[in-house]
Amino acid sequence: MSTDTSEPDTSQPDTPEPAAVVSAEQQAREAELTARVLASFDGTADPRLRQLMQAAVRHLHAFLREVRLSEDEWQQGIEFLTAAGHITDERRQEFILLSDTLGASMQTIAINNEAYADATEATVFGPFFVEDAPLVQLGGDIAGGAKGQPCWVEGTVLDTGGKPVPGARIEVWEADEDGRYDLQYDDDRRAGRGHLFSADDGSYRFWAVTPTPYPIPYDGPVGKMLEATGRSPMRASHLHFMVSAEGLRTLVTHIFVRGDDRLESDSVFGVKESLVRDFAEQAAGTPTPDGRDLGDATWSRVRFDIVLAPGGA
Amino acid sequence: MSTDTSEPDTSQPDTPEPAAVVSAEQQAREAELTARVLASFDGTADPRLRQLMQAAVRHLHAFLREVRLSEDEWQQGIEFLTAAGHITDERRQEFILLSDTLGASMQTIAINNEAYADATEATVFGPFFVEDAPLVQLGGDIAGGAKGQPCWVEGTVLDTGGKPVPGARIEVWEADEDGRYDLQYDDDRRAGRGHLFSADDGSYRFWAVTPTPYPIPYDGPVGKMLEATGRSPMRASHLHFMVSAEGLRTLVTHIFVRGDDRLESDSVFGVKESLVRDFAEQAAGTPTPDGRDLGDATWSRVRFDIVLAPGGA
Ligand SMILES: [Fe+2]
Ligand SMILES: [Fe+2]
Repeated sequence: MSTDTSEPDTSQPDTPEPAAVVSAEQQAREAELTARVLASFDGTADPRLRQLMQAAVRHLHAFLREVRLSEDEWQQGIEFLTAAGHITDERRQEFILLSDTLGASMQTIAINNEAYADATEATVFGPFFVEDAPLVQLGGDIAGGAKGQPCWVEGTVLDTGGKPVPGARIEVWEADEDGRYDLQYDDDRRAGRGHLFSADDGSYRFWAVTPTPYPIPYDGPVGKMLEATGRSPMRASHLHFMVSAEGLRTLVTHIFVRGDDRLESDSVFGVKESLVRDFAEQAAGTPTPDGRDLGDATWSRVRFDIVLAPGGA
Repeated sequence: MSTDTSEPDTSQPDTPEPAAVVSAEQQAREAELTARVLASFDGTADPRLRQLMQAAVRHLHAFLREVRLSEDEWQQGIEFLTAAGHITDERRQEFILLSDTLGASMQTIAINNEAYADATEATVFGPFFVEDAPLVQLGGDIAGGAKGQPCWVEGTVLDTGGKPVPGARIEVWEADEDGRYDLQYDDDRRAGRGHLFSADDGSYRFWAVTPTPYPIPYDGPVGKMLEATGRSPMRASHLHFMVSAEGLRTLVTHIFVRGDDRLESDSVFGVKESLVRDFAEQAAGTPTPDGRDLGDATWSRVRFDIVLAPGGA
């Protein structure tokens, strides 16, 4: 097999703990059980489902055997999943938080959004997108009353050949400076989100607020797990983008703020170096690109050129 | 490393599906993400928790990468866990059913109950044990009104040196011939369960009902999984035992009925060959061991000598 295939990666930087000594007879017994479970899925009509179930069983059993899971730990695992199920409702999704904080969401995105030439990289979608965000004109303000420092965002949508993409639909959304999305307030506000279309030369520009850090919901079992493992629930400051255009692959991504000290510890592992941008701080009174009068407020500006891969509808 | 250690078993009888071709660059990207997630747990204060979380992440990511999980499949996984969480309450535990049907419960038992010399083997505990089962005298009836063919159960409790164990506490429980435990009825009946103590010579004997097959609850997401994979929810016919005695390891096990055609397809993988017993059918009118008059009913009898390993409180 060449190095160009998806052979299981054995170069993990993490060295597993030394294993307890297990007799050959006991190992054979455990392997036989795993084989029996695998065989029970042989009759699965859908070959993809069979593959998924058998792979899940192989990895699950390998985990149990490697760590020599105790019966108490098994019980704690059951209780964790039960608590996650019980806190989950229409407004809260603890299993997605679990997937996010174990890097499983980001890994799934990596698997399904392979890097293409110099196209802009993807990152997690997150739970805060809505379909009906307001249309804003080029140069308009997506803050919609969201609190925060004004931020001028501009760039050009391009294909991987460097050709500008006019009419690309750009959805943007973000938390306010208190670290909350509009959806997290009890009123029906729509703020910190909008969509716009790139101009004939592919360019776009809008006002937003400078992104600030916020915690993922941490009052449930996933929060307890983060606490027990010394991890922070905070996400690195970011502004969400979803960009689509005919004939090109839809891009779901964020831009991050260079200098944010949470870039290395983003709780959902969404940060990619190529998505970190300079949000240049502007002193109060600095003239704005569109002549907007911000009084004595400071503001920031950032440039994000977006390169879409071929493909898509 | 010698073959006497718990090196990951690579002799699985199941050959993974041919993997899609993934570029070396993409592989490196995915491996780097996994490494980042693993490193996020480096600060875990409890070394065992760190080991568990890092192993879970390694195996979870290996699964995702091996099967190249699609974003739709990820979504279905989230929905499955959510449905399992929502059907779970004080009387129903879908996550335990999931663990049982994936063989994870039985594997955890195997890991924690290594075979010891000629001691009787352990199997799954199941969800139907209760603490307050009635005391029955030697030769008494644990059926307590449970429907079914009478079954005489006898044997001797021994240590691994062959010495009889007097005063061992023997808990037994079973479903009735309609395939239901007392707990699964809406009334407060106590039937098909009891505890007794071995005699001075280690012997024990009681009446029960001949075990019959029953399905695990299959009206939830786990039932849907079994159906989609062509698996049956039925358990092989069995009688549960939990046997404890001072200075010996407590044994949780079943005995199974030789000839039951579900021995090979037990939905929770609890069957071990050493636990299969002859339940000898007795014609109507055959004299009973204790002179009990069963009228024109047929009955069965089984012998189960129980060997307890050293250890325990
Ligand atoms: Fe976000
Ligand atoms: Fe049972």
